[in-house]
Amino acid sequence: MRNIKLTLEYDGRRYQGWQKLGDSDKTIQEKIESILEKMTEEKIEIIGSGRTDAGAHARGQVANFKTESAMSLSDMHGYLNRYLPKDVAVKEIAEVPERFHSRYNAKSKQYSYYVWNDKVRSVFNHHHSYYHPMKLDLEKMQEACEKLVGTHDFLGFSSLRKSKKSTVRTIDSIAIEEENGMLKFTFVGEGFLYNMVRILVGTLLEIGDGTLDISVIDEVFDTKVRKTAGITVPAQGLFLDEVTYD
Amino acid sequence: MRNIKLTLEYDGRRYQGWQKLGDSDKTIQEKIESILEKMTEEKIEIIGSGRTDAGAHARGQVANFKTESAMSLSDMHGYLNRYLPKDVAVKEIAEVPERFHSRYNAKSKQYSYYVWNDKVRSVFNHHHSYYHPMKLDLEKMQEACEKLVGTHDFLGFSSLRKSKKSTVRTIDSIAIEEENGMLKFTFVGEGFLYNMVRILVGTLLEIGDGTLDISVIDEVFDTKVRKTAGITVPAQGLFLDEVTYD
Repeated sequence: MRNIKLTLEYDGRRYQGWQKLGDSDKTIQEKIESILEKMTEEKIEIIGSGRTDAGAHARGQVANFKTESAMSLSDMHGYLNRYLPKDVAVKEIAEVPERFHSRYNAKSKQYSYYVWNDKVRSVFNHHHSYYHPMKLDLEKMQEACEKLVGTHDFLGFSSLRKSKKSTVRTIDSIAIEEENGMLKFTFVGEGFLYNMVRILVGTLLEIGDGTLDISVIDEVFDTKVRKTAGITVPAQGLFLDEVTYD
Repeated sequence: MRNIKLTLEYDGRRYQGWQKLGDSDKTIQEKIESILEKMTEEKIEIIGSGRTDAGAHARGQVANFKTESAMSLSDMHGYLNRYLPKDVAVKEIAEVPERFHSRYNAKSKQYSYYVWNDKVRSVFNHHHSYYHPMKLDLEKMQEACEKLVGTHDFLGFSSLRKSKKSTVRTIDSIAIEEENGMLKFTFVGEGFLYNMVRILVGTLLEIGDGTLDISVIDEVFDTKVRKTAGITVPAQGLFLDEVTYD
């Protein structure tokens, strides 16, 4: 059995997220599986590094699948990019050891989130960013980022109700960059809880525009109460940039 | 009579270009005029700095219109951005002297053209760039740009058959920048002939990938024969960035 690793780019706008829902074509996973099945004439199951939300995008989602096909990697690469829809592409393809597992072996992930912060809405970026016109105090937001980085129980910054599994996570870094009205938030960490990046961005924006005080962060860490934190910003601004393996 | 100057941004994908065609809603000019007429309850004609092609975009198209409305500029700005569709926005609004004319007074224009130059197509930029996967010799293309800059008869680099008016134009500069697989061509000049930017980009790409020799430029200047030059790249990669006035 060969084990093939794909690095994928997709525009999530038309999809119900990564994860298979049933027998539909509305998720990225199903879309890719159906083309792999035509290509290999085998039943294929692809394993993603993790789910991405309905409407969220990826520049570097990683997935792997097993096959007995003898097709060359470069032929597979050509086949997939020819038959995949315009909003999904295979950036890289590689053969990996049989034990490689996209989800279990992922060491770290990078997400970015885009916020258009200008008096006038953007005609070009409205499908790939969230529009927040209020003036933002970037210095205060940077200060808030420093409080978030590190190892904490992020339950209150997630959409999980309760969890039997640990909700302690480590964020390695959060960066905020601004260019011509577009704010880019970049998060790097070993893993993120459900909706965690989107709630962290919502909270940072509300700290930045004065709706919330910076003390909200310690409060959410203490109480673990979701509703104390900021809004969940929409998926359209979210990109899975990169998944790192050893 | 007040004379109002608008700086406009639009995603041209859904439109038949700037210029009014008749009684339809398919051009940017008609879209904006119909909203201005509701706003002012007057018959409005807007004058653009020039046409943009069907499918081409703008970051800084300039237009002006005359009105007797007493509405404040900031109310007009708010009204327009509320009622314009998501793919058209007014970036700036200003009151200008009555003799100001967007087309006659334009001193210089900047256009940019985007080319996605990578082995794998881009899922995010396919509506706003042209995909040219072949390897390009950027140095040779820069050399070609130096030959194009300056004052020449550009008839052979346009879609005009013949012209009673002069087809001599001056290009002040052409820049080619590359970032993560995206090439950006920037043209600055006092004015450009019909399809001239798109044919120049097509010619530069064909010089870059080896289809055409660099000598084609002098040949087209000499013979003025359109078919000797490169292809007309599609409008989807073209942006009118800026119009400059004294």
